[in-house]
Amino acid sequence: MASVLGIHHVAFAHSGEISLYLKLTTLLGLPDAIEEEADGFIERMTPVGECFLQTLESTGPGVVQRFLERRGPALHHVALRVEGLPAMLNELTAKGIELVDARPRRGALDSQIAFIHPRAFDGLLLELVEDSESVASESDVAK
Amino acid sequence: MASVLGIHHVAFAHSGEISLYLKLTTLLGLPDAIEEEADGFIERMTPVGECFLQTLESTGPGVVQRFLERRGPALHHVALRVEGLPAMLNELTAKGIELVDARPRRGALDSQIAFIHPRAFDGLLLELVEDSESVASESDVAK
Repeated sequence: MASVLGIHHVAFAHSGEISLYLKLTTLLGLPDAIEEEADGFIERMTPVGECFLQTLESTGPGVVQRFLERRGPALHHVALRVEGLPAMLNELTAKGIELVDARPRRGALDSQIAFIHPRAFDGLLLELVEDSESVASESDVAK
Repeated sequence: MASVLGIHHVAFAHSGEISLYLKLTTLLGLPDAIEEEADGFIERMTPVGECFLQTLESTGPGVVQRFLERRGPALHHVALRVEGLPAMLNELTAKGIELVDARPRRGALDSQIAFIHPRAFDGLLLELVEDSESVASESDVAK
């Protein structure tokens, strides 16, 4: 059954003048960030216990740059760790919830992700994340 | 030793026209929120695994109302679960970090909390939270 298991990460959008991810390490003793390049931004995931603090550095035109133009450096979205992501997206669609991604797509660290449209949750941008191990174990069950 | 254990909660500020906390329950199957009244706002903590999604509803003049005037409904801060909060605040002060609360004060659910000034973390407002059980067990160790 599809369910929400916890918070996967919280994302903060910023420009290249900011090095928040370094401060999280040097000032709060958090581990070094895991870095991945995406289209128009670099995303860095700093582990915080079972969750991550994600920083999104704008490097060119795209969603992060557009967000910064409207809001400046700010918290961008919350990602929930889920199991049964495809079923959850079907349930949300059946309830009339507007999705950015009607089907899961590949996210950072080999996860499967989908965004819900912020209009559906009063302006809060929610991402749903299913870890690859979770997806793998569901496939095992299906065998 | 003072250290960061995980994410305690993520907070979203809104006006009374919004009932995000209800949508988290009805649309995502999360448990009902735990509600507490504060000066100028109602805070509601919706459990999400080991963490919480906190909604801050402005009810009068105060920090939440001022935030809404500047930004509208938006993510407000990230709270980190820590142990050894007083020692951590001393360490941050020694590193020249600007704090909103130089000493722990009482937060929701009997926790001890302190906010770091957003100037210290590139605009990200961070709260540090130590659960009451954690404070109690430190006292036991000190006996």
